[in-house]
Amino acid sequence: MDKWDSSAGAAAFHVPEWMIQFADQKQEFNKRPTKIGRRSLSRSISQSSTDSYSSAASYTDSSDDETSPRDKQQKNSKGSSDFCVKNIKQAEFGRREIEIAEQEMPALMALRKRAQGEKPLAGAKIVGCTHITAQTAVLMETLGALGAQCRWAACNIYSTLNEVAAALAESGFPVFAWKGESEDDFWWCIDRCVNVEGWQPNMILDDGGDLTHWIYKKYPNMFKKIKGIVEESVTGVHRLYQLSKAGKLCVPAMNVNDSVTKQKFDNLYCCRESILDGLKRTTDMMFGGKQVVVCGYGEVGKGCCAALKAMGSIVYVTEIDPICALQACMDGFRLVKLNEVIRQVDIVITCTGNKNVVTREHLDRMKNSCIVCNMGHSNTEIDVASLRTPELTWERVRSQVDHVIWPDGKRIVLLAEGRLLNLSCSTVPTFVLSITATTQALALIELYNAPEGRYKQDVYLLPKKMDEYVASLHLPTFDAHLTELTDEQAKYLGLNKNGPFKPNYYRY
Amino acid sequence: MDKWDSSAGAAAFHVPEWMIQFADQKQEFNKRPTKIGRRSLSRSISQSSTDSYSSAASYTDSSDDETSPRDKQQKNSKGSSDFCVKNIKQAEFGRREIEIAEQEMPALMALRKRAQGEKPLAGAKIVGCTHITAQTAVLMETLGALGAQCRWAACNIYSTLNEVAAALAESGFPVFAWKGESEDDFWWCIDRCVNVEGWQPNMILDDGGDLTHWIYKKYPNMFKKIKGIVEESVTGVHRLYQLSKAGKLCVPAMNVNDSVTKQKFDNLYCCRESILDGLKRTTDMMFGGKQVVVCGYGEVGKGCCAALKAMGSIVYVTEIDPICALQACMDGFRLVKLNEVIRQVDIVITCTGNKNVVTREHLDRMKNSCIVCNMGHSNTEIDVASLRTPELTWERVRSQVDHVIWPDGKRIVLLAEGRLLNLSCSTVPTFVLSITATTQALALIELYNAPEGRYKQDVYLLPKKMDEYVASLHLPTFDAHLTELTDEQAKYLGLNKNGPFKPNYYRY
Amino acid sequence: MDKWDSSAGAAAFHVPEWMIQFADQKQEFNKRPTKIGRRSLSRSISQSSTDSYSSAASYTDSSDDETSPRDKQQKNSKGSSDFCVKNIKQAEFGRREIEIAEQEMPALMALRKRAQGEKPLAGAKIVGCTHITAQTAVLMETLGALGAQCRWAACNIYSTLNEVAAALAESGFPVFAWKGESEDDFWWCIDRCVNVEGWQPNMILDDGGDLTHWIYKKYPNMFKKIKGIVEESVTGVHRLYQLSKAGKLCVPAMNVNDSVTKQKFDNLYCCRESILDGLKRTTDMMFGGKQVVVCGYGEVGKGCCAALKAMGSIVYVTEIDPICALQACMDGFRLVKLNEVIRQVDIVITCTGNKNVVTREHLDRMKNSCIVCNMGHSNTEIDVASLRTPELTWERVRSQVDHVIWPDGKRIVLLAEGRLLNLSCSTVPTFVLSITATTQALALIELYNAPEGRYKQDVYLLPKKMDEYVASLHLPTFDAHLTELTDEQAKYLGLNKNGPFKPNYYRY
Amino acid sequence: MDKWDSSAGAAAFHVPEWMIQFADQKQEFNKRPTKIGRRSLSRSISQSSTDSYSSAASYTDSSDDETSPRDKQQKNSKGSSDFCVKNIKQAEFGRREIEIAEQEMPALMALRKRAQGEKPLAGAKIVGCTHITAQTAVLMETLGALGAQCRWAACNIYSTLNEVAAALAESGFPVFAWKGESEDDFWWCIDRCVNVEGWQPNMILDDGGDLTHWIYKKYPNMFKKIKGIVEESVTGVHRLYQLSKAGKLCVPAMNVNDSVTKQKFDNLYCCRESILDGLKRTTDMMFGGKQVVVCGYGEVGKGCCAALKAMGSIVYVTEIDPICALQACMDGFRLVKLNEVIRQVDIVITCTGNKNVVTREHLDRMKNSCIVCNMGHSNTEIDVASLRTPELTWERVRSQVDHVIWPDGKRIVLLAEGRLLNLSCSTVPTFVLSITATTQALALIELYNAPEGRYKQDVYLLPKKMDEYVASLHLPTFDAHLTELTDEQAKYLGLNKNGPFKPNYYRY
Repeated sequence: MDKWDSSAGAAAFHVPEWMIQFADQKQEFNKRPTKIGRRSLSRSISQSSTDSYSSAASYTDSSDDETSPRDKQQKNSKGSSDFCVKNIKQAEFGRREIEIAEQEMPALMALRKRAQGEKPLAGAKIVGCTHITAQTAVLMETLGALGAQCRWAACNIYSTLNEVAAALAESGFPVFAWKGESEDDFWWCIDRCVNVEGWQPNMILDDGGDLTHWIYKKYPNMFKKIKGIVEESVTGVHRLYQLSKAGKLCVPAMNVNDSVTKQKFDNLYCCRESILDGLKRTTDMMFGGKQVVVCGYGEVGKGCCAALKAMGSIVYVTEIDPICALQACMDGFRLVKLNEVIRQVDIVITCTGNKNVVTREHLDRMKNSCIVCNMGHSNTEIDVASLRTPELTWERVRSQVDHVIWPDGKRIVLLAEGRLLNLSCSTVPTFVLSITATTQALALIELYNAPEGRYKQDVYLLPKKMDEYVASLHLPTFDAHLTELTDEQAKYLGLNKNGPFKPNYYRY
Repeated sequence: MDKWDSSAGAAAFHVPEWMIQFADQKQEFNKRPTKIGRRSLSRSISQSSTDSYSSAASYTDSSDDETSPRDKQQKNSKGSSDFCVKNIKQAEFGRREIEIAEQEMPALMALRKRAQGEKPLAGAKIVGCTHITAQTAVLMETLGALGAQCRWAACNIYSTLNEVAAALAESGFPVFAWKGESEDDFWWCIDRCVNVEGWQPNMILDDGGDLTHWIYKKYPNMFKKIKGIVEESVTGVHRLYQLSKAGKLCVPAMNVNDSVTKQKFDNLYCCRESILDGLKRTTDMMFGGKQVVVCGYGEVGKGCCAALKAMGSIVYVTEIDPICALQACMDGFRLVKLNEVIRQVDIVITCTGNKNVVTREHLDRMKNSCIVCNMGHSNTEIDVASLRTPELTWERVRSQVDHVIWPDGKRIVLLAEGRLLNLSCSTVPTFVLSITATTQALALIELYNAPEGRYKQDVYLLPKKMDEYVASLHLPTFDAHLTELTDEQAKYLGLNKNGPFKPNYYRY
Repeated sequence: MDKWDSSAGAAAFHVPEWMIQFADQKQEFNKRPTKIGRRSLSRSISQSSTDSYSSAASYTDSSDDETSPRDKQQKNSKGSSDFCVKNIKQAEFGRREIEIAEQEMPALMALRKRAQGEKPLAGAKIVGCTHITAQTAVLMETLGALGAQCRWAACNIYSTLNEVAAALAESGFPVFAWKGESEDDFWWCIDRCVNVEGWQPNMILDDGGDLTHWIYKKYPNMFKKIKGIVEESVTGVHRLYQLSKAGKLCVPAMNVNDSVTKQKFDNLYCCRESILDGLKRTTDMMFGGKQVVVCGYGEVGKGCCAALKAMGSIVYVTEIDPICALQACMDGFRLVKLNEVIRQVDIVITCTGNKNVVTREHLDRMKNSCIVCNMGHSNTEIDVASLRTPELTWERVRSQVDHVIWPDGKRIVLLAEGRLLNLSCSTVPTFVLSITATTQALALIELYNAPEGRYKQDVYLLPKKMDEYVASLHLPTFDAHLTELTDEQAKYLGLNKNGPFKPNYYRY
Repeated sequence: MDKWDSSAGAAAFHVPEWMIQFADQKQEFNKRPTKIGRRSLSRSISQSSTDSYSSAASYTDSSDDETSPRDKQQKNSKGSSDFCVKNIKQAEFGRREIEIAEQEMPALMALRKRAQGEKPLAGAKIVGCTHITAQTAVLMETLGALGAQCRWAACNIYSTLNEVAAALAESGFPVFAWKGESEDDFWWCIDRCVNVEGWQPNMILDDGGDLTHWIYKKYPNMFKKIKGIVEESVTGVHRLYQLSKAGKLCVPAMNVNDSVTKQKFDNLYCCRESILDGLKRTTDMMFGGKQVVVCGYGEVGKGCCAALKAMGSIVYVTEIDPICALQACMDGFRLVKLNEVIRQVDIVITCTGNKNVVTREHLDRMKNSCIVCNMGHSNTEIDVASLRTPELTWERVRSQVDHVIWPDGKRIVLLAEGRLLNLSCSTVPTFVLSITATTQALALIELYNAPEGRYKQDVYLLPKKMDEYVASLHLPTFDAHLTELTDEQAKYLGLNKNGPFKPNYYRY
């Protein structure tokens, strides 16, 4: 088994340049001008789709109240004022959103039931920094039901649903977040979560690493009492690995981003649906008979290709990795270089995580009305900057849809300006968020209850058994009935009846 | 990165009971009564399908020549008699088979071309023990073209194609193998490969571990000159891990069984086709509208389910692992316990690697005409023994097809007596064998040429870069065009332009 | 061949009750209180989706101009005032919409090119009554380019895009239509198209039959000069068949609703995409693993089932027709009665054209959060009326989405109040509208140019050759290359090289 | 409704040249040298696959008995000698085959049960001429159970299963058929069925039209008592239409070939499976990643394309009909001319019914190892004759598989010498034969019981209601539950609750 690793030596863990660059940009925390750049790295709820489709909550949001929440005096119905939200009076609307979300997050609700007797988080003081949405609220209230005390800030200055924040504050959660925070507000909110008299966190739940770094910078002594960090984003995880490498990680951290279940849902299953949704909502196009090239055949590319093929599109794939390339072949896709098909395709979709996959030269050669969009992990895949030249005319035809017009009249249809289509023009289903939230809750329970010495000052993956447990909590949604091993079978297979069922290198 | 492993501690590498039992049975090599039991563990060419479909070769095989090859005096056209085959005169038929196989094994042919200038195996003395088929012949002749000297025996007493063995002998390869060897013949042949005056092997290519163990037992000193072992079977690999664990492995060994490419082709891609083929050839049934339960949703189960769903069957899945279960749900299959559907299904397929998945109780409850078969990794999944009772009547209706008849007249249709359907009633496409053979060749080259110290006395996985190389050699078959990273992109991603392209834990 | 018909005697052409009822309601044209009821019968552009997604056009539409267009004095830039639209100044916005539509209607553009030399509609005076959209504008301008003079009114009081109407008026088309007409406006507009000094129509293009009936009622003498009627809607076609049956049809009429190409695109291909789109836009649900029952396996049901299966849903089907039922089986769907699965499904979709397919009893038994929607041909399939009872609470959670809440807290999610989901919550792709518009144009050309006697006072289907021509005009969109028969092959098959290629009873 | 037909005038019913030619060849019945040519026209059980796979029956068939059955004296156990089969002693083996077939023909078994009380064929004297197989035996015994007396001959000199014929004779059916009849035997057998003292047929069941024409030629007076002809083959139906056209058809005839259910199963559903089966059994190829061109996108082509796409092949389509071409596009296939892809494809499949679709020029340009086969309706699609030239070498590598080798060494793999792959190299599932047999039985019942005047001296399609009944009898196989209309719904739709449910022009 340990050979698995030694053979890993050659490949190592990639430290892509964009991550290093990104981390560099972040080093001066107080000076960071904006949070917007982050949105595409950590998965977040789409702003645009929330705008268009979200429910009642937004109806109450059109108030012209321009006063900063920091300047308001607000109390919840129990008299507490240990929170800072846009408008505590919106609590009722937020509560309804939370109730709806609860119905689609059965795993957390089950966790509440199963674990509340023993209160596995009794004594836990969790400081959190995530998107503040109805789904997060379900997570927070679950943590509370399991015995934890929580204080919470937003990890994104735009993504907070004010009504939900109000509902949480009304229920007694010290929440510090509103939609449209300034940079200064952002750090102020985080600080209000951490810097409290008579309360010190012993667990961190982070999404992007800002909370963690704030504590590192401002209150390093706090780590003496902290039992662990749970981090879900690619960026935050990378920062933790760098800290660890530099020998500066002083508590155990759990990387929940790379758990099997979360990865499959965030990428394969989610993108299989959101590619269709994103294209349809922006362009109303018909998929049948369209020629599409998908750049990259990782989990995201696999999801996109499967969906479009099923809808009657003719799909071409580009790849750099021969193994993924061979998978594309066996799945029935012509493997080409982008140049070979760029003149004929109706849609170009990037799913590589790479940069400049679609260059100006490609864009010049596309046919009229070609749609170009990005489903990958950054906004660098399409060289959008190269289109900002005087000879090309940009025409915004809808929200998230630009026509870029060549001198000869040729138009290409650029979606979301090359940012992530699924985040900008689709929505993330609650079920996917439920997977993530459950994973976070279990990681907190594991780190908080782990016996001394199980975890050192390092970054860990979620134990496979917990990964399996997350999955099992979601099976009832599908009325799915798991088979249990008999004693005889378990012995035959050399397995524990309760799992884990696979070796770590199993590929699913 | 190294945390990947520490978290692995809990799950460890399963040592299933059946492997231990199996190894026990093997300890007394000379007493082992038969090789038949092995067939289901290492993937082999189906005897039965070869019988029915194989080409001209078999036409020449009906000779009533009962003389043991060991008692014959044969010489090839160059006057050599350093071989032992059924009938050297069949060489021409075998040569044609080899030529046909060459056309479908472009990767090895490309390897011959690319590597023959430098002769990377010059000086290599390879002793091999595998199935002797046209595909193996292409491998052996490739090894020869790369500079190696080879001596070869069969790893299975039934699977040798006599004409191919004759063709190899005619070409000057010392081959010791024929169809229908006795147990004693089996070991005699192996010994003739190893125990030669003036020739000592420095590389071992094994399939099942018998050759390796023969040398361990009889000629342990030989290992001083041996640079490494390449092993492809589940069983052989398990034996090597046990030797390693016991500290008795005295040369590096390479586990080629678990390479990504081989795994995907042996399981997912191969079974996706062979489940249909096996069912059709045995029963001529129609798939449309049939209700099927597939037990197990690993790679084999995934392949079976995808194929049957595509053909219009209604597929149910059983699973013990909640992650695989969730995958089944997301792929559109009802996850049930076998009991829930056993009365209604038309077909039961086992793909678990487990034992007694289908019990007599299940068999009793199946409806009339229900078809039962096994695509998993052993012949234990269906409790066939339980059907050998006086009240049930067995009726052989075709080769590999039995009707088992209950007192009330109910019949179930049992295929291949519960042994592997895809091996017994279908064929393994040459392309799949090409993947395996190429992997073996590259592993031999790697071990033979590795600088001192790269590999210790342990079991290694094929380096990812080689795995990728195997894939890349097969892309031209599909006229697939790989994209190359630009320098800028490689830097951005932190990758070498030539790979490896993924971290070791990547799941594909 | 003629036996095909005699055997048809038994089945005859159904005269469903709802059609009769509907026609009854219509008899008093001037008294008809509203046009809303019609929307679900003739295919129309979704109001709601237009609202949410339509382009620039709608931005200009928020003017608070409450003056009735009938009371305004407007002139286009050429000085003409022979039109009546909301605001002629919006013409530029409408023109851009038309230009975008032109890009997606290549068949009409090709028709303009191919036929404009000979002007096959020279002398034609066409009066039209259809939805007024960008796509209709492309049709009208094509008719103009082919030589016709046109006058146009809207067939729906809500569906007119004012900017497009303005653009048409600016280009010189006498258009009489605006969004939000009153009942009186509606007939006034139609009358202004017909009742003009010095101009008399010789062709009618109708969608729903209102224009035709207005002329029957008010200006019966006009029919003396009219060469034919082209009608596209189910309702309008039914009215024509009734007129014919009653011996009152005094000109030839062409039923373009039942042409092969139009049927396939309006139903199978369109619904395959719009079911996903409609569900996603309204509920943001995930399809994977969901249990769905689709009532009805006609073209619409087939499209819905194929799409959902491809997205990983588990789909059950109900049917009354054993042939369609057998098709469902062979396509891999469990055929059930609604009662059998109603407790377990997550989604119920009706596609039957029938009434009360989903009854209150079914609704009572659905599980919490079950989604209920209609893709069929009327709003009668779900017994929505039965839900308007005091014990149930309705909660509008989004546009087109109601939660109906039972006393015990159970909610069902009702979409579009049981009206057509694809029209209410999705959009009709331009490509589908292009098929229809091309069919209409060809039917007009055929009727206008047909030699005396080819068509009598009866209702005709589009000749198969024209149906094929519509298809062929759309092939270039897909860069599709048709093969031409050699003379020898045509002779062998007994076919004309230019078609028609199939007998009329061919089922495609 | 009757306009449906008038518009049909242009297209008419094609009378392809090959049908006329074929009929010409047949005019001299006594001189017809062979029946082999017919096999590809009427669907028949594959000879080759029967050879390879059929059950016990064939084991008994290797007798070296060269005596002509006509020269043998045989009696069944009841003492009757009114039959002529190969060997009455094989009856037991045949009986077992019939019993197995009964299990897969539930519709006929249900028909026996439902109808045997009333004996709807009491008094019927049916003379039949079809393939003599286990499935036919189930049909004959069903007809007997419904009250009919039957006499039977084979419609093909090779396809008779001797054991089944023996079993029928043993049961008392006068059967005159054996495998390997001479031309003279063939007509002698037919004559023995017809020309009997004291027995005159009143119904004809024919497959190919030979029986019908024998009676026309030899015993025209017999038609006075004959109530009708039921014919299932394309050829036979065409002959009947020609008789009708010529005014020579003197009894009603029913064309069961064109019923919806039979058509779908014979073409779409059957070919979807048999294309995979035929390719696999002959070549053991892998489908994944293969490039395939399918010529023709009718029902057969649709089935082939769907199956291969599902297995991971990349499929191109050629078409002459723009409507079918558009369907191919919408289903996700690139529509090309054969020339465009002929150099790159791995497999060429013809499904057109046309001639010389694949020419020598195409064959010359194919790449090495390209597989060429025919799934269409004749053996003319591939110009095989053009390959019989001196410069090309033919090498038979397996049964039904030829390598044709070009001077430069290029090989193409020709399957079944261009005859129908699905008949030559696959099998027809019993379920498909069950559909046909049930249709035949119902047609006999209908014609026999029809009131005077319902059917004239013409060719009729099976009434839709009967077509629906055939389907409904097969639903229980799938445990499929049909929904019944309520009275209210039936009234609303204008339908009878028991069907027919669709107008005749419905396309399914």
